[in-house]
Amino acid sequence: MRTAILGATGLVGRAMLDLLAAESWAEAPPALLVSARSAGTKLAFRGAELTCREVGDGAFDGVDIALFSAGGGPSRDWAPAATSAGTHVVDNSSAFRMEPGVPLVVPEINGALVNAPDGALLVANPNCSTIQVAMAVAPLAAWGLRRVDVTTFQAVSGAGRRALAELQKQEQGEEPEPGVFPRTMAANVVPAIGPATAGGAYEEEDKVVRELRKILDRSQDLQVSCTAVRVPVHTGHAAAVRVVCERTPDPAAAARALADFPGVAVADRGHDFATPREIAGDTRVHVGRLRPDGAGGLLMWVVADNLLKGAAWNAVQIARRLAGAAAP
Amino acid sequence: MRTAILGATGLVGRAMLDLLAAESWAEAPPALLVSARSAGTKLAFRGAELTCREVGDGAFDGVDIALFSAGGGPSRDWAPAATSAGTHVVDNSSAFRMEPGVPLVVPEINGALVNAPDGALLVANPNCSTIQVAMAVAPLAAWGLRRVDVTTFQAVSGAGRRALAELQKQEQGEEPEPGVFPRTMAANVVPAIGPATAGGAYEEEDKVVRELRKILDRSQDLQVSCTAVRVPVHTGHAAAVRVVCERTPDPAAAARALADFPGVAVADRGHDFATPREIAGDTRVHVGRLRPDGAGGLLMWVVADNLLKGAAWNAVQIARRLAGAAAP
Repeated sequence: MRTAILGATGLVGRAMLDLLAAESWAEAPPALLVSARSAGTKLAFRGAELTCREVGDGAFDGVDIALFSAGGGPSRDWAPAATSAGTHVVDNSSAFRMEPGVPLVVPEINGALVNAPDGALLVANPNCSTIQVAMAVAPLAAWGLRRVDVTTFQAVSGAGRRALAELQKQEQGEEPEPGVFPRTMAANVVPAIGPATAGGAYEEEDKVVRELRKILDRSQDLQVSCTAVRVPVHTGHAAAVRVVCERTPDPAAAARALADFPGVAVADRGHDFATPREIAGDTRVHVGRLRPDGAGGLLMWVVADNLLKGAAWNAVQIARRLAGAAAP
Repeated sequence: MRTAILGATGLVGRAMLDLLAAESWAEAPPALLVSARSAGTKLAFRGAELTCREVGDGAFDGVDIALFSAGGGPSRDWAPAATSAGTHVVDNSSAFRMEPGVPLVVPEINGALVNAPDGALLVANPNCSTIQVAMAVAPLAAWGLRRVDVTTFQAVSGAGRRALAELQKQEQGEEPEPGVFPRTMAANVVPAIGPATAGGAYEEEDKVVRELRKILDRSQDLQVSCTAVRVPVHTGHAAAVRVVCERTPDPAAAARALADFPGVAVADRGHDFATPREIAGDTRVHVGRLRPDGAGGLLMWVVADNLLKGAAWNAVQIARRLAGAAAP
């Protein structure tokens, strides 16, 4: 299979390249497509050096599967050309996620959509926080999910390379020019991710609410609330989640259901948990602090590497399915 | 009035000393009482230099009001001696908070307990996170509080001077000996504050649940859940709070009730908020991000200086009432 990565020099693009190196179905070196600014950048792949080139007309000719991670604008610009060329596109931007007919896929949950007989050429990769929350609540479906309340602790790498560099400067005591973040992120927590939207939310919060429903194939009968908070962590998102079900899940039984779910690592006692620093580089979603909330709900602490399961790994899992390889 | 501070060299003790300097009823310089280890430390007060001395028998003779902030052990050791000497004690430890007959006071909410005719000599100062959550939900009592779900983002200074020094070393790239924190705090978030307790919680979470009920004079009919998380912020706690009431509060009306409540600063639009870095040094509780949760609940973002309203300022407000001075 011939692959391409659009946005190869970004944090997620680089992670995609590293992950593709281990995929046996991705025989040929991926085409690395970037903006004019990044053209010429060299990246390592299986011991060789690949050169990034500017995306342009014909860039997707002969490409079987393209992973897009260059933001909504480039996705909108290039997805039509790619799919017209017959290329399968796994898009990590939010451009097409909520479009009817575009599958929004977390392979362990609804991966079958990728291989549907009338499968679309474009598959959307969900929002990073949404993926890990979906992985933590989907295994509880047997109890009848009724409500999910989410508070996120989101790493700065989720905002990209420039954001991470800005935090690192602030950590060294520099006060960089106002850049990615309007407020100082070092030693601070900021409950505003993405643009402000109607109803008092910020876009990241709306994404969690609506994408979670789409992934779980639920309507507004699934109540979801979200407060999304940026924290001065480099990589690894955490989320404090409260779940209310039709039937109260016993924490031990919930832990078993989670442990049986592929891609989830569960700390099965209320006090055990993972932290972002510890799980950076791990493709799994870590669920811990499972305990009753005292009124029929279940509390949990959900941690995942936002660049891997939250982005690049989930996209590569989708690509693997597209390639007809083994299930995730 | 003659005052004393037990634990004067701690972060909260020093803040108490600074705040007392501005209290006209505290005429005499406070007696600064410390452990043997800290005896001899000199601290500034109204331009003069005071010397800390070891707490011992007779230390509270002639003291009208003593502020305790040396931890549960010293509070249990010295509160009986102080009250036997007729000294009013405002105790910032958790030693006596849940004892029947000991008022647990946030002056704006239940300050009248301090001046009750049969008032106890010992008054307990609540947990830092609990104080700011109580200040944010008490003004909504008219809507009939039914449920409060809390996720905290707690600054390292809440764990004391050694904890703050440990974080600062980690921020400079040092890996200090395992000290206050069992896991690295720099660039990490850790959902475990205080010892593990029964039911899967950590002590900080149990404190929020039971102290909130006591401050609001409510029983278990007020449902409370809490996940308490340490974040790499120096000073200033934040909390993402979801409130469910008998009658759904309109965010604008809730904002007005909050703005009318003494000690609360409210950002009255869903997108506005304060962050810990910005409000360090401010004695108020800042409530922002007020917005509906889509199912009858109200979401909010609550920030306060954990060393001030969360500890020293709340204690000095109680002392002010004890001194018969103006209401807070």
